[in-house]
Amino acid sequence: MSYPEKYVLYIGDANDILDIKTANGFCFWRKEDCVGEIALPGCTVTTGLPKMSIAEAKKHGATRFVMGITTHGGRLGHADIPAVQEALALGYLVISGLHLKLGDIDAIRNHPAYRADRVAELRHNAENVIATGTKRKGRRLLTVGTDCCVGKMYTTLALEKELKKRGVACTFRATGQTGMMIAGGGVCVDAVVSDFAAGSVERLCPENDPEHWDLIEGQGSLYHPAYAGVSLSLLHGAQPDAIVVCHEWGRKIMDGTRDFHVPSLREAIDLNLLCARMVNPSAKVVAISMNTRHVADLATARRICDETEEELGLPCMDVVRHGVSAMISGIF
Amino acid sequence: MSYPEKYVLYIGDANDILDIKTANGFCFWRKEDCVGEIALPGCTVTTGLPKMSIAEAKKHGATRFVMGITTHGGRLGHADIPAVQEALALGYLVISGLHLKLGDIDAIRNHPAYRADRVAELRHNAENVIATGTKRKGRRLLTVGTDCCVGKMYTTLALEKELKKRGVACTFRATGQTGMMIAGGGVCVDAVVSDFAAGSVERLCPENDPEHWDLIEGQGSLYHPAYAGVSLSLLHGAQPDAIVVCHEWGRKIMDGTRDFHVPSLREAIDLNLLCARMVNPSAKVVAISMNTRHVADLATARRICDETEEELGLPCMDVVRHGVSAMISGIF
Repeated sequence: MSYPEKYVLYIGDANDILDIKTANGFCFWRKEDCVGEIALPGCTVTTGLPKMSIAEAKKHGATRFVMGITTHGGRLGHADIPAVQEALALGYLVISGLHLKLGDIDAIRNHPAYRADRVAELRHNAENVIATGTKRKGRRLLTVGTDCCVGKMYTTLALEKELKKRGVACTFRATGQTGMMIAGGGVCVDAVVSDFAAGSVERLCPENDPEHWDLIEGQGSLYHPAYAGVSLSLLHGAQPDAIVVCHEWGRKIMDGTRDFHVPSLREAIDLNLLCARMVNPSAKVVAISMNTRHVADLATARRICDETEEELGLPCMDVVRHGVSAMISGIF
Repeated sequence: MSYPEKYVLYIGDANDILDIKTANGFCFWRKEDCVGEIALPGCTVTTGLPKMSIAEAKKHGATRFVMGITTHGGRLGHADIPAVQEALALGYLVISGLHLKLGDIDAIRNHPAYRADRVAELRHNAENVIATGTKRKGRRLLTVGTDCCVGKMYTTLALEKELKKRGVACTFRATGQTGMMIAGGGVCVDAVVSDFAAGSVERLCPENDPEHWDLIEGQGSLYHPAYAGVSLSLLHGAQPDAIVVCHEWGRKIMDGTRDFHVPSLREAIDLNLLCARMVNPSAKVVAISMNTRHVADLATARRICDETEEELGLPCMDVVRHGVSAMISGIF
């Protein structure tokens, strides 16, 4: 699936910044392609883009309507359905990364403007393929995490940007809905039937030139009670040569759990290496991506990274604050 | 989904005993409920049940038509479709554990006798549910493996049989198509969207009486390059108190792979415990189930188990040859 052109980001009546994570991620990496955001009455958060109606966005040249909201349990609010109907009626391609298939909603499927090829359902486009584990030519880097939502996608995209600047042949490989919207392709690993999850990642980053790098977006954490299986399938399918471990400073409890403790970086390194080496004996952890967003003081953030670097003997930086240069010199 | 009554097993034109694994597994555990098998011309394998036509089986009282074949890549042969049509026309409930949905095949869905509720599609009945990792009352045993197809289902069912004989409150929890056919319920974990795989297992073995045992059928292996993610989701969702590690003596290369080595029992024990303890700190490996089917000599099989027992300090037996008594005394 590939789709260039101009985008408008739909954020519904969201009240929590986490619920527009998809819109914000897209906006951060593809701002130049966004004309604005569409918010419903009651919405209290924003991507920072100009607010406009669906029709106004059209006049600004938008042809792509991004479902920028994530919904717990994958359900749409009733107010969202008329928005999708209007977008379809105006000829937009609707791009959705929801678990729920928009085409399964009667009011959408039965709308006169609905056509299956006018809705890009990113979580419903995977083919059934079983992993072989066979070693493929080309080099691969995977970001993994001590937890969900710690910065794996940002780190991977930052690496792509910097490497391309330096003329290194590389491709960002998206494995989640936001990454797919940004890249215009990829596979939603968490939406693939579990038997085929590793296989879908093998297909995502196939054999390539020996010096080419696939930069593969990680998902979840081997330590997360709900998503560890997704992370392990991804790790095995990716067969990474290089692993970057992502961590959020100060996070104690795993995302979405009541009392699961975030593992130490040391634990996450060891378990990821143990599992990665089953499929690629030369897999190495090459860097730590430390998310210090909850550390206000820049000097403290720097010190946290320096101490981690010393403790683990690996380059460590906050990719938003410090960039990825130090990481790259270690790998490429 | 639950379905008692009499069964006929469809084995098509299979030529490999592995392709009728489902029929053989069902026949082994539910022989008293089977009236016969249906083989097409060219079929060179058998479950040992009397051969008969679909109509004859009906006269023998069969009401359930079991798709006893497994197909690589999940495709049906053209010869299989008329058989399913005939079964539907004769009023059978067709039970299929294939990845392929029978109701997606035009020639089946458009057949006048087709109704969605006349086809039990075991791989298409899971609900979307995210795991919480919350500790549940009741006790749980999970069989895990060094590889696929080493005897996890057999071990689990043998435990159920023996425990019930001893009056221990327990329930077999099926996680694959054959186990589901045998138990008349369960969830095909490998067919669940990976985000929900662990959650579907949590739902399969919910909170229960403190002394009740769920005996949960394992799938795959944490060391298998295609299925490790499935196994990890199952391990996390099951939250086992007790783990039985299943192994086939003499197997060197992982099932379906070119050159992946089967891990040692020690490695499998360590990695399963490491991951199980994330969700249940008191998880223990309680026994080794050693499949010695390729060892002709009974004394040698006994010696292999004794040596393994000594080496690992855990009860070890071939559950087919030696029964499960020694295993049970260690656990219950």
